[in-house]
Amino acid sequence: MTIKNAFYAQSGGVTSVINASACGLIQTARLHSDKIGTVYAGLNGIIGALKEELIDTSFESDGDIAALRYTPAGAFGSCRYKLKSLEANRAEYQRLIAVFKAHNIGYFFYNGGGDSQDTAHKVSQIGEQMGYPLTCIGIPKTVDNDLPITDNCAGFGSVAKYVAVSMREASFDVASMCATSTKVFVMEVMGRHAGWIAAAGALAADENHDIPLVILFPEVEFNKERFLAAVDEKVKQYGYCCVVVSEGVKNSDGQFLAEAGGKDAFGHAQLGGAAPVIANVIKENLGYKYHWAVADYLQRAARHIASGNDVEQAYAVGKAAVEFALAGKNAVMPTIVRISDAPYQWEIGSVELKEVANVEKMMPPDFISADGFGITAACRAYLQPLIAGENYPPYKNGLPDYVVLKKQLVAKKLVAFDV
Amino acid sequence: MTIKNAFYAQSGGVTSVINASACGLIQTARLHSDKIGTVYAGLNGIIGALKEELIDTSFESDGDIAALRYTPAGAFGSCRYKLKSLEANRAEYQRLIAVFKAHNIGYFFYNGGGDSQDTAHKVSQIGEQMGYPLTCIGIPKTVDNDLPITDNCAGFGSVAKYVAVSMREASFDVASMCATSTKVFVMEVMGRHAGWIAAAGALAADENHDIPLVILFPEVEFNKERFLAAVDEKVKQYGYCCVVVSEGVKNSDGQFLAEAGGKDAFGHAQLGGAAPVIANVIKENLGYKYHWAVADYLQRAARHIASGNDVEQAYAVGKAAVEFALAGKNAVMPTIVRISDAPYQWEIGSVELKEVANVEKMMPPDFISADGFGITAACRAYLQPLIAGENYPPYKNGLPDYVVLKKQLVAKKLVAFDV
Repeated sequence: MTIKNAFYAQSGGVTSVINASACGLIQTARLHSDKIGTVYAGLNGIIGALKEELIDTSFESDGDIAALRYTPAGAFGSCRYKLKSLEANRAEYQRLIAVFKAHNIGYFFYNGGGDSQDTAHKVSQIGEQMGYPLTCIGIPKTVDNDLPITDNCAGFGSVAKYVAVSMREASFDVASMCATSTKVFVMEVMGRHAGWIAAAGALAADENHDIPLVILFPEVEFNKERFLAAVDEKVKQYGYCCVVVSEGVKNSDGQFLAEAGGKDAFGHAQLGGAAPVIANVIKENLGYKYHWAVADYLQRAARHIASGNDVEQAYAVGKAAVEFALAGKNAVMPTIVRISDAPYQWEIGSVELKEVANVEKMMPPDFISADGFGITAACRAYLQPLIAGENYPPYKNGLPDYVVLKKQLVAKKLVAFDV
Repeated sequence: MTIKNAFYAQSGGVTSVINASACGLIQTARLHSDKIGTVYAGLNGIIGALKEELIDTSFESDGDIAALRYTPAGAFGSCRYKLKSLEANRAEYQRLIAVFKAHNIGYFFYNGGGDSQDTAHKVSQIGEQMGYPLTCIGIPKTVDNDLPITDNCAGFGSVAKYVAVSMREASFDVASMCATSTKVFVMEVMGRHAGWIAAAGALAADENHDIPLVILFPEVEFNKERFLAAVDEKVKQYGYCCVVVSEGVKNSDGQFLAEAGGKDAFGHAQLGGAAPVIANVIKENLGYKYHWAVADYLQRAARHIASGNDVEQAYAVGKAAVEFALAGKNAVMPTIVRISDAPYQWEIGSVELKEVANVEKMMPPDFISADGFGITAACRAYLQPLIAGENYPPYKNGLPDYVVLKKQLVAKKLVAFDV
């Protein structure tokens, strides 16, 4: 039997630790070169497979692969591209199999969120149907933390840490100026459907840091009067208030706050964000001086403040993907299984892709406080270990010395394919 | 001669290292308790002196004072309050002297920007006129880096590092997704008059990180056509472009871009920021998918990513203030004097307050590239050492363990005074 090569692709919005998964995967594959040949990576994700743009990772030095552990974003390129259903676009799946066949690829590793796990699942089915058996392993990744079954997703802990640290720091700033200046600070965070990231903002406060916080979750319909009352109460008690608003917060008519903007002086529609809208609601109704921030990509790219546990888990799921494949598993995804909260203990588990595909995990109702503006003790116990541990990248001239790979492409063997 | 006490106040917008100056000052004063008595700190800056709300720092443990070195924002409270001229409000100056006299204060340390140095200068004059000699020392602090004579300002290096690191990280994110998603990322940074902070964004790119950047400085009038051409060129060459926009950028009619917003769905005026305005200009004219971030307070509060050199210098100017006072100097401010760029060497110098008061240091024209969208080699050589070095705070439960002081007030001795 010839040794089969592997294909790895990064999918969807990137995170500060998705490359740590790539690192775990490639380093582990290199340890088993008797069983896995070359690891090819898709240039810009699955599109790289469709276009036969395959990066030969064997040209990347051991040092550069090791550096992926501390380099944010997608080193091979990622994409937002969801394969259609088998019925709607069988040709795409057939193309994937043709490319895999042409390059003797027997392992398909897909590093992404719910959609990607669905794709990995479908690819495993089509491979079987087409008589080209393929080992398909999903690798969980998403800042949104919305994959089911796994206790948490690689990528979430680091964005959660960024949000908690940033809000603690900003609260110190506001607290020290509020007597004569800004009284309300609003920070917008990611999470279009699930409030996991917004919830992490609540960790800014703890038993030694009594910080007045109001969290706006996408799971809770925005009620202007109740919100204003909550903010006003905090300002009256503490002198200031910090607000975390999820980009996914909606009005009672189901419209995103972020889309409630008007037109600017150029006559252009003002698209987003939610933070300035919330800030204006405060200004107009309470009259308090405000400031607002929109973290946007900074939060998910912030490898400099990544969670140590997150980095470790991201590496572990990449490593486990190869180990699963070598153990003969197929159509599965490694999961993170929590053994205990404190001390935090976890291990790698496994779930079938069909159980994960297209299921979105929302915040459980008992994680949101009764007033809808905070988190419960259960939520805190869940979140706390995910942001724990620091794992700093190396610095050069005051800046993180992130690696840029060679990304050398393999010669194409097939005719072009339109994507 | 009885030992005189000292008064210390934090002034204006806080920084991530102003407490490091407080730490240097108080630790040094404690070493000289034979010459300086109690260090009182103004609750909320100079307002604390006017209201006779004096924090007795001797109630703060050595450990808590040491922790100020790594705690952002103003631990004693700061304020935006500029004393009027001697002619316009002599009563305020007389009140200051009365409070100082009542608490046997012979040293006045004022930690702030240009306005504060002006106030410190005036207080030294009025003390003399009123026959109450007072040693007045200014301590430089401002993220804006706009104080004259000193090579740089404590506080600037850390915000510069935050901006450079954040932009490098975000650029990795955008680079990895641009084939199918966002092509232009816009980050808004502080700097209403001077472009020092915006300039720091250019450090994201270096000889190992070829990142397409366009910087919009407040010193350069915004020209829509030229800007769009610059962005479009980068996108065509690299596939993406990153834009740093200073909050102080103005249109040709002198209007801040940040104030060019319209009304939102609530009918409220949309106040700021510049980033969404720039993003919309790109969207409407070039059609590229964009994302934008507004760092706001996050940038100046981000002690977790402070510059090691900045922390050291902030501490040094606080320490030097006490040493100057003990050496009999008066109406001066410690400065940072650059000896060489590489290796970076600096020492503490001294300048008379009257030379510093109300002078704003702008970016020199030869620091901005010919096209107006980048920095020159001279600017890079200047900025580089200011962001160098990492100085991480201690962490507990995944978060920086910043200190909150007791802030115990001294009993008042005078009648109330309206501020």
